[in-house]
Amino acid sequence: MQNFVYQNSTKLIFGRGAEGEAGRETAAVLRTLGAGPQGRILLHHSGGFAARSGLIDRIKGSLREAGVGWVELTGVKPNPRLSLVREGIALCRKEGLPFILAVGGGSAIDSAKAIAAGVPYGGDVWELYAKKAPVAEALPLAAVVTIPASGSESSTSSVITNEELAWKQGLSAECIRPVFAILNPELTYTLPPYQTACGVADMLAHVMERYFTREPQVELTDELCEGTMRTIVRNARQVLTTPGGAHDYDARAELMWAGTLAHNNLLGLGRVGDWASHHLEHELSAGYDIAHGAGMAIIFPAWLEYNIRADSSGGDGLPSGNTRPAQFAEKVWGLSLRRPDETAREGVLRLREFYRSIGLPVSFTDAGLPTDGIPGMARRFSRFGPDGKYRKLDAAAAEAVYRLAC
Amino acid sequence: MQNFVYQNSTKLIFGRGAEGEAGRETAAVLRTLGAGPQGRILLHHSGGFAARSGLIDRIKGSLREAGVGWVELTGVKPNPRLSLVREGIALCRKEGLPFILAVGGGSAIDSAKAIAAGVPYGGDVWELYAKKAPVAEALPLAAVVTIPASGSESSTSSVITNEELAWKQGLSAECIRPVFAILNPELTYTLPPYQTACGVADMLAHVMERYFTREPQVELTDELCEGTMRTIVRNARQVLTTPGGAHDYDARAELMWAGTLAHNNLLGLGRVGDWASHHLEHELSAGYDIAHGAGMAIIFPAWLEYNIRADSSGGDGLPSGNTRPAQFAEKVWGLSLRRPDETAREGVLRLREFYRSIGLPVSFTDAGLPTDGIPGMARRFSRFGPDGKYRKLDAAAAEAVYRLAC
Repeated sequence: MQNFVYQNSTKLIFGRGAEGEAGRETAAVLRTLGAGPQGRILLHHSGGFAARSGLIDRIKGSLREAGVGWVELTGVKPNPRLSLVREGIALCRKEGLPFILAVGGGSAIDSAKAIAAGVPYGGDVWELYAKKAPVAEALPLAAVVTIPASGSESSTSSVITNEELAWKQGLSAECIRPVFAILNPELTYTLPPYQTACGVADMLAHVMERYFTREPQVELTDELCEGTMRTIVRNARQVLTTPGGAHDYDARAELMWAGTLAHNNLLGLGRVGDWASHHLEHELSAGYDIAHGAGMAIIFPAWLEYNIRADSSGGDGLPSGNTRPAQFAEKVWGLSLRRPDETAREGVLRLREFYRSIGLPVSFTDAGLPTDGIPGMARRFSRFGPDGKYRKLDAAAAEAVYRLAC
Repeated sequence: MQNFVYQNSTKLIFGRGAEGEAGRETAAVLRTLGAGPQGRILLHHSGGFAARSGLIDRIKGSLREAGVGWVELTGVKPNPRLSLVREGIALCRKEGLPFILAVGGGSAIDSAKAIAAGVPYGGDVWELYAKKAPVAEALPLAAVVTIPASGSESSTSSVITNEELAWKQGLSAECIRPVFAILNPELTYTLPPYQTACGVADMLAHVMERYFTREPQVELTDELCEGTMRTIVRNARQVLTTPGGAHDYDARAELMWAGTLAHNNLLGLGRVGDWASHHLEHELSAGYDIAHGAGMAIIFPAWLEYNIRADSSGGDGLPSGNTRPAQFAEKVWGLSLRRPDETAREGVLRLREFYRSIGLPVSFTDAGLPTDGIPGMARRFSRFGPDGKYRKLDAAAAEAVYRLAC
């Protein structure tokens, strides 16, 4: 087990009616900032379903009741755009807003994080994502989660798409971790099944990225990962493939809680995860604007298949007889064949079958994506050099993974 | 799943050599208090092994290097005493110490928490434990953990023994949660096996208390609990019954990390645990001064046996056909007999067998305790009325559990 430092101070307010706490919690943060209860905040969301469903009105009511004013910035889209982030930064500066409340899924929260980091930064915010400067400080922010998926509500990461460069890039900094997050599973009853499924693939990917590690023994972290993955799979089936499942509070609650745990880094402690799949997917969704979760359903099984093949020929310093893919197949999918590599390969099939059963694409073909962009994506994937901590992938390896996903 | 609010802000610094961070982390806290790096703190420990092993000297060196001074209060004993707490409170007040660093196991940390709560309180600190007044504020405190057991290093609870009244009582308050905790598994290599085993029983009990709940479905919490319990059992065997196991870093690290997770309340979210066993044990260790972990090894299997018998006759509002004890037997001990109640009963046997295998007593007889005190303990257990959230125990039920433990 490697040394680690762990601290996650996000206050999680979970359950029925939790959004009613938005005003009180925001006012409490404003008091600590010395902004007084009469302060105004940036209220950031898509302007779409959350507004039409009445959620935004309920949150405004809660803010009003707590004496908190707001300026609204709507228009967040999936794969959140740099242009809107720049608009938000200008707005916060102009209006002197000291706090951001994001309402939505990972896109709204990641967009809010980018604005929060950009406001006190002297240069253009993209420089922070392009790693030209570190994030030294940020406005405090919080989230009301409507899509269990990204785990962004208690994580330090944000992913933004620079539309001009067709470049999707992540950033991580402690100061952009939300102060509080409000999670009401009831808000997810009306999510379209495809969006629920994309969220499931996203949270599962967050656990799998951490699960595939070279660290030989971190048993407790393994157990926590495996239990979380089993919970996600079971409850995704309950919500998406069972009559009445969409309104099953407990199943929705399991998914929502799993989505947060999957990415608050508890499941990564004591070891280093891989994350190449995420970066392979970022090229996909930056190029073709498909949902990140759908992209992960296409990429991850291909990445795993590539690794199982690579394991059989040894290489890249992974321990000989590496049985992690077999352990994944055994613990998450209940498989146990004669040989570990057979078990591992069967695990890939089960993973793909699961994604298909909840309505997700598992190939370029399924998603109707062209394959002529693959060499370019593989090149851009490796723009900073070979990527991946479990197994390093260069441009050729990345291309091989994309081909396995065709 | 019940609504919950979760926030655990303790910074965990885990790994080899972690105690070298004590000075830097303490100085950082003093800066936030405006006390300046030249401030002095209370350094609180037993004065026993931690001092003889050189750990206390290393911590003093780390403090000195960070420019932090200290006043020392030693003499902490297992089942920490109210008298020493009162001494600590007087010392902090007299010397104007704004921060407490505890070095040791749960006793040192719980004693430090009591001092922290007592310093700003106008009355006598025992009033806080006797629930005559709430804990409104406390000095900040932190811990260097030498015994993985109590989980006190990131919990809100403290248990103190009032020697005059032979009364051991717990207290819980957010403001006594440690600011940071330092956990170096290497420090536990030299723990006597009996103390390691007592710690194992303590952490296992923290999970089991949360596992036995009436809440019908909290699947993710169940998975996390079951994975943590399996990890504890496997690594306790590795450390305590395998040649060279005492110096197995990874196994020690799993136990230490499990001990923290077992009691930071992540494993209790979305439901209400039981906690009658802890209170039954507190009467035992208050009366006979045995180690809390040993007491839990005696009490918990008896409590579980009592509940399985009670389940078979229904009662106290538990769902008919309650199979939680069978689930415990199946998931933690890998058992699956013909009928759930058979599986459940076999689970009790395995739990007792496990405790015995690591050198713990599982009965009054094993521990050489007299049984004539049982009626008095049962009476004191129910001094605030029937206790236990999974199944309410009155004095008669408490006596029945004690008898099953004879």
